[in-house]
Amino acid sequence: MRTNGKPQTTIWYDDQNQCIVIIDQTLLPHRFEIIPLITLQDYCCAIRTMQVRGAPLIGVTAAFGLAIALSNDPSINNAADASEKLLATRPTAVNLRWAIERVHSAMGQAPEQQRASIAMQEAKKIRADDILICEAIGNHGLPLIHKLHQHKLQQQNHQNTTLNILTHCNAGWLATVDWGTALAPIYKAHQAGLPIHIWVDETRPRNQGSSLTAWELQQQGIPHTVIADNTGGHLMQHGLVDLCIVGSDRTTASGDVCNKIGTYLKALAAKDNNIPFYVALPSSTIDWTIDHGIEDIPIEQRDAKEITHMTGLDAQGKISEIQLIANSPAANYAFDITPAELVSGLITEHGLYSPNQQSLGKLQQRLRALKTNI
Amino acid sequence: MRTNGKPQTTIWYDDQNQCIVIIDQTLLPHRFEIIPLITLQDYCCAIRTMQVRGAPLIGVTAAFGLAIALSNDPSINNAADASEKLLATRPTAVNLRWAIERVHSAMGQAPEQQRASIAMQEAKKIRADDILICEAIGNHGLPLIHKLHQHKLQQQNHQNTTLNILTHCNAGWLATVDWGTALAPIYKAHQAGLPIHIWVDETRPRNQGSSLTAWELQQQGIPHTVIADNTGGHLMQHGLVDLCIVGSDRTTASGDVCNKIGTYLKALAAKDNNIPFYVALPSSTIDWTIDHGIEDIPIEQRDAKEITHMTGLDAQGKISEIQLIANSPAANYAFDITPAELVSGLITEHGLYSPNQQSLGKLQQRLRALKTNI
Repeated sequence: MRTNGKPQTTIWYDDQNQCIVIIDQTLLPHRFEIIPLITLQDYCCAIRTMQVRGAPLIGVTAAFGLAIALSNDPSINNAADASEKLLATRPTAVNLRWAIERVHSAMGQAPEQQRASIAMQEAKKIRADDILICEAIGNHGLPLIHKLHQHKLQQQNHQNTTLNILTHCNAGWLATVDWGTALAPIYKAHQAGLPIHIWVDETRPRNQGSSLTAWELQQQGIPHTVIADNTGGHLMQHGLVDLCIVGSDRTTASGDVCNKIGTYLKALAAKDNNIPFYVALPSSTIDWTIDHGIEDIPIEQRDAKEITHMTGLDAQGKISEIQLIANSPAANYAFDITPAELVSGLITEHGLYSPNQQSLGKLQQRLRALKTNI
Repeated sequence: MRTNGKPQTTIWYDDQNQCIVIIDQTLLPHRFEIIPLITLQDYCCAIRTMQVRGAPLIGVTAAFGLAIALSNDPSINNAADASEKLLATRPTAVNLRWAIERVHSAMGQAPEQQRASIAMQEAKKIRADDILICEAIGNHGLPLIHKLHQHKLQQQNHQNTTLNILTHCNAGWLATVDWGTALAPIYKAHQAGLPIHIWVDETRPRNQGSSLTAWELQQQGIPHTVIADNTGGHLMQHGLVDLCIVGSDRTTASGDVCNKIGTYLKALAAKDNNIPFYVALPSSTIDWTIDHGIEDIPIEQRDAKEITHMTGLDAQGKISEIQLIANSPAANYAFDITPAELVSGLITEHGLYSPNQQSLGKLQQRLRALKTNI
């Protein structure tokens, strides 16, 4: 996608400085800064403090982190140690483990002196694949938006009409390498000239919606409006939402979707108002080892300070922090589970699947046939 | 209720300075300041800028505002003009109209020179009644909490157990004159020694939960935890919520509940997880003229700046504002409608009623018998 008119991705190898660089997403939307990741500690810190975030991007970053660790010490022990450190940064997203396992699998039994370069090549391949995967998600989601727009046009006697799409958190290109997951079909629809307007949940406590999704859409010139997370239900009751699309941090083999806290509430409201609720995700987000989202997916609890304090631009134009809560404790659960029965469909790089074991079983077979690591 | 150990209400006649004074709630939880309301403009501004807020307190404040306007000019024209100005401050809460009509009705055909003093007396009576009404709501809600606690004890083999109650926005004593609506049963339960813990929705965009409800509960020493509005569904899925109690800004004759934006989403989650969802309200909050909440209640849209900016304590301990959103538009709907079928019951000053026309019809008959203004 483009920032300030120029093509941009979230993470890449900087040939000039011979290191991996990222956009520091904690400074958006106020400042656009590129920072280098040099040591394994830099990688762990970038993931933990959410300079990079979003399940796919976390996976790509972890793969590069492991490759960098191996370039210093390619021993089996160091590979295990670095993998453990990277896995400990965020407990919920499954792509982290998937990407690390893919790097290990690529190295296989290769001799020690080749391991670092194999790892780096595999990390670069994961990055390149992620771009293709996300664009494919966009292509598979586009007909869905097109069909809903046709339907709305028919309902309204072909009067000029805009399709209103609600999204939660940021599952845009900033959450991946490029294109995004939930936003990929939206970008494709915009490029196809479909008239769309996006309701952007601000997504407390870290405001990924108002900071990142709104910034992305503004950069691409897509009409959008930021709303408090409380608002979606009201909009749906009044016919102001035609479609919901969100991303996922982990999805079970039976289609339960783990995503940013609050997703479940929007899915309930969509069901109550007969509005399609789609989840866009790369197949690497599916955890084939579990069926029951609520019981089996660990939900990350983050620092209460993300609730009690907030960061923004002060009157002097400086990014600064204010305290919202005086003397009360706060709890900060980062994700929730949307049960499969609330999900209309899963948009993957291999097409649309229903959120149940039978349909996802077919996807799993297809992935096996493609010899993709799963 | 008590602040810093001393009894306190939200609005009262200051005998020494011979004027009405209020707590400026926009400064809480960081500063506790009492300010006088002198002119009609002061009253309108206090309601509009939410120095006072909460349906019952808005009603009491408007009654005093009308009395003050009449003390300067007791003509019928001025009464109509002042009433109109007060009614225009907030469009959703019905108590505002109810209180103003009650003052007009008390004045009846009284001669002009008596109108101001009758109005002031009636305003004082509305204030005194509000305290009694809210305490009665607390008394009627208490058995409900007691019963749920007994039930939980039985389920858990009489092990020491805490009842977890979730509330949205602020329907505490700060939203009324004293006691509150949703929090009145909670205060009564705490006084009765029941072990309770309150989940406090922060309630974006104005953070009435984290600023006001959390402050109230902390002042009374009631265990509580502030959460992002997105969190309630997750807590309910994991058995961490036993009961929801919220307030209401307007309730229809058939039991549809208008309350702070986001209430509907919590009610959906409560229904989905079999958790009782109660609404506590004075009967003056019921709009007997309407049946259909979604169609018939106008939803206030407030300044987008409440979404794009936020106020809190900066590093220097000064209340200051930061900007959250860069260049994106925002929409700020203040309320939503929770359809009657999601409501377990209405806790009023006259006892528990079901959210349907038949049950509320009995309440209306009772109010008529009591010759209450409705």
